Amino acid sequence: MLAIWHTGEVRRRSTVGAHEIERRRRRPDPGSHDTMLTSDNPTRTAELLALSFAWEPARFSRRVHEIPSVMRAGPSDPGVISLAFGAPDPAFFPGAPLAEAARQALADVPTSAVALQYGHPDGNPRLLEELGKKLAQEEGRPIEPGTLLITSGSSQAIAVAVQVLADPGDVCLVEAPTFMGTIRTIAFHGLRPVPVPLGAQGIDLDALETTLRRLQAAGTPPRFLYSIPTFNNPTGVTLPVERRQALLEIAARHGLPIIEDDAYGDLRYEGEPVPSLHALDRQGLVVRLGTFSKIVAPGVRLGFILADPALIRRLAPFKPEGSTNGLTSLVVGTYMRSGGLAAHIRTLRDGYRARRDAMDGALRREMPDGVTWTRPEGGFFVWLSLVSWIDVEKVAAATVEEQVAVMPGTACHTDGRGTHNIRLAFSLQPPDQITEGVARLARAIRAGMRTA
Amino acid sequence: MLAIWHTGEVRRRSTVGAHEIERRRRRPDPGSHDTMLTSDNPTRTAELLALSFAWEPARFSRRVHEIPSVMRAGPSDPGVISLAFGAPDPAFFPGAPLAEAARQALADVPTSAVALQYGHPDGNPRLLEELGKKLAQEEGRPIEPGTLLITSGSSQAIAVAVQVLADPGDVCLVEAPTFMGTIRTIAFHGLRPVPVPLGAQGIDLDALETTLRRLQAAGTPPRFLYSIPTFNNPTGVTLPVERRQALLEIAARHGLPIIEDDAYGDLRYEGEPVPSLHALDRQGLVVRLGTFSKIVAPGVRLGFILADPALIRRLAPFKPEGSTNGLTSLVVGTYMRSGGLAAHIRTLRDGYRARRDAMDGALRREMPDGVTWTRPEGGFFVWLSLVSWIDVEKVAAATVEEQVAVMPGTACHTDGRGTHNIRLAFSLQPPDQITEGVARLARAIRAGMRTA
Repeated sequence: MLAIWHTGEVRRRSTVGAHEIERRRRRPDPGSHDTMLTSDNPTRTAELLALSFAWEPARFSRRVHEIPSVMRAGPSDPGVISLAFGAPDPAFFPGAPLAEAARQALADVPTSAVALQYGHPDGNPRLLEELGKKLAQEEGRPIEPGTLLITSGSSQAIAVAVQVLADPGDVCLVEAPTFMGTIRTIAFHGLRPVPVPLGAQGIDLDALETTLRRLQAAGTPPRFLYSIPTFNNPTGVTLPVERRQALLEIAARHGLPIIEDDAYGDLRYEGEPVPSLHALDRQGLVVRLGTFSKIVAPGVRLGFILADPALIRRLAPFKPEGSTNGLTSLVVGTYMRSGGLAAHIRTLRDGYRARRDAMDGALRREMPDGVTWTRPEGGFFVWLSLVSWIDVEKVAAATVEEQVAVMPGTACHTDGRGTHNIRLAFSLQPPDQITEGVARLARAIRAGMRTA
Repeated sequence: MLAIWHTGEVRRRSTVGAHEIERRRRRPDPGSHDTMLTSDNPTRTAELLALSFAWEPARFSRRVHEIPSVMRAGPSDPGVISLAFGAPDPAFFPGAPLAEAARQALADVPTSAVALQYGHPDGNPRLLEELGKKLAQEEGRPIEPGTLLITSGSSQAIAVAVQVLADPGDVCLVEAPTFMGTIRTIAFHGLRPVPVPLGAQGIDLDALETTLRRLQAAGTPPRFLYSIPTFNNPTGVTLPVERRQALLEIAARHGLPIIEDDAYGDLRYEGEPVPSLHALDRQGLVVRLGTFSKIVAPGVRLGFILADPALIRRLAPFKPEGSTNGLTSLVVGTYMRSGGLAAHIRTLRDGYRARRDAMDGALRREMPDGVTWTRPEGGFFVWLSLVSWIDVEKVAAATVEEQVAVMPGTACHTDGRGTHNIRLAFSLQPPDQITEGVARLARAIRAGMRTA
């Protein structure tokens, strides 16, 4: 059974201390081996070569011992309904159009030769061109040359931006709660995240100001703010446009770059679009990240960074593989050029809207008093809040029994908060499974109430 | 004109010193801004927001200032013949078979759903299976589960292995000369490379022993040896099998992991295959890296690491993008399953053999006395040695005039050696261009001799 609840370990560092690591790093004295085992002593050599090489902890870099563990879902029990992960539904993947784009693109010999050769660090020309057109529409202004970098998904985009903007030990700001993948990346690179509360209207700007003043007074000004202002992961809330302007003003006053993660902006199910922070920014302090994972498929492993050219040209060397996958870039660029992606996004909006509605409806019907939740206008997530007298350990145990997997709120915080929150994703399951999954979760929550 | 000669900068660190970086990191006092510019003062705020955000050096992490520059070829002059880069010839790219593999793979809905979803950190199952079969043939033994990791090209494989095996400041061993990309990666991660000379029979084992004893006595034992034992880049030489056994024995005695870069092993043009170090290793100390860049196309951006499971499971968290590109992995895995890749490799051997022969023949006809070169049995490179009284600065200037681009030997060394060496790649140009390019280079070398 797969009940994703105890994922607090995502943030937890290994308990191996520096002293212990140093001890493990000390190797056995090689001199003694040298004396015993030389090629002049074939018996000893044969003995030595019969042994397995000892890949003990001392063989590995310190960071291997310090990094958070990778979250891996085990083989899932078909009886479990997972509302845990923000993965898109494979039923929506545009397999046939991608195959047709591959056929077209690879039949065009000059174009495929460019895409299949070692490429430019910024990315494949066709994908840059088509993405530039899409972003120009969204931003309401042309995308200038040198402002776009293609990456291997937005996971790599986050990693690259973090490494270019901050050194190990530096402070950065994150919304509380925030995307668990970013919490992991920040820990991996040794940054110290400071949380700024997120409310129903997005980031708390007064708290941001207070935190900035406190950190500056302490001599540890943050290197950047990481924000998900549109259809926030995990809460689903969106920062209104007038508060975006105010956020930009604060950032400008404090010299604070903003990493704007916009993974879900294309997936609005109702209401008026809100411009991205980057679209409102006339100063060049916003670093907008995006991905094709939610609108095409994660397996194309393509994301991007849109930012000031002075920043973009520093980012490329941090992609260890050089240029991002040329074949996939060409396929997706060709799919975009055909108009297929734009049509597909409209289809996705309808599909995911039905799932959001299924989840919201089921929550209204099933949830006991003492439970509240967000109703997002887009994206993949609903954020549940339980009243404090519900026993969350009992709820967690009951989700296992009920065969429903959810994400605990603590996984979305950097400091242990979120014990009485749950993130629900409505992206992966069809509406009937969502309805059933919410019913199971409601029973689990009731189990935690009865005995509290 | 593109004359790739002065690429010594690949290794050069920025001359910005630590003091200067620290100075740049100090920000202007934010307090003064706070006083002047608040939202209570709309005029000032408007002025502030009209300014561009200052992406000055202090905004960036220390590593941005310290890393070597990325080598970027400018737009190439069509008049220049490039023998500089080890890029495969796009004329050999299997575009149509890849398109057919994409069509087949994406028509199979269950398979494409797996490939297009977020994937397992180790890689796509079909690619792992097909690659496992290929490697089992080469290694003469089954490839056990958990011993393979798919990466974004072998560039990422090198970066991941280096980060898992060593910390900044640690010493590692490299052959001299070696692959310039690895020199860059090692510098990027702050390792201290110690060169071990490479001769006509591969790495100098006596020098290796001496270096190991010296470093151990100094308390700085190397964390690993990075070796390219088969069709070495840049020299083309191959370590004979009996010397491979001796190398493994030394490594076992000294507890020295070996990163074996085997980018060219499939491309043998004559002579008997030599088993990889990994195939000969019964202890599990060899970490074999490979790539699809030379046998399929660089744009598929796929490589791999074959190693002890104890190491493999530590490597995956160092791929920031999570699982490697599922779409491309599925396409290449399907291409392999069809038998297409095996047939293609045979075609490539014939194609590149003709180019090696064209280069060797041209060198014999054109090169003046005082120039020697290697005759590789496989791979992409020939290594030229000029006698010391040839003025290499004059030669470099003359290559610009002659419109031929080559790689200076210094780019393949960590310590400024190689001033009288040149790496020539015969992979990218058809035979007639190779012949003409060598004739141009011979004239440039004669220019350096006349005036010396």
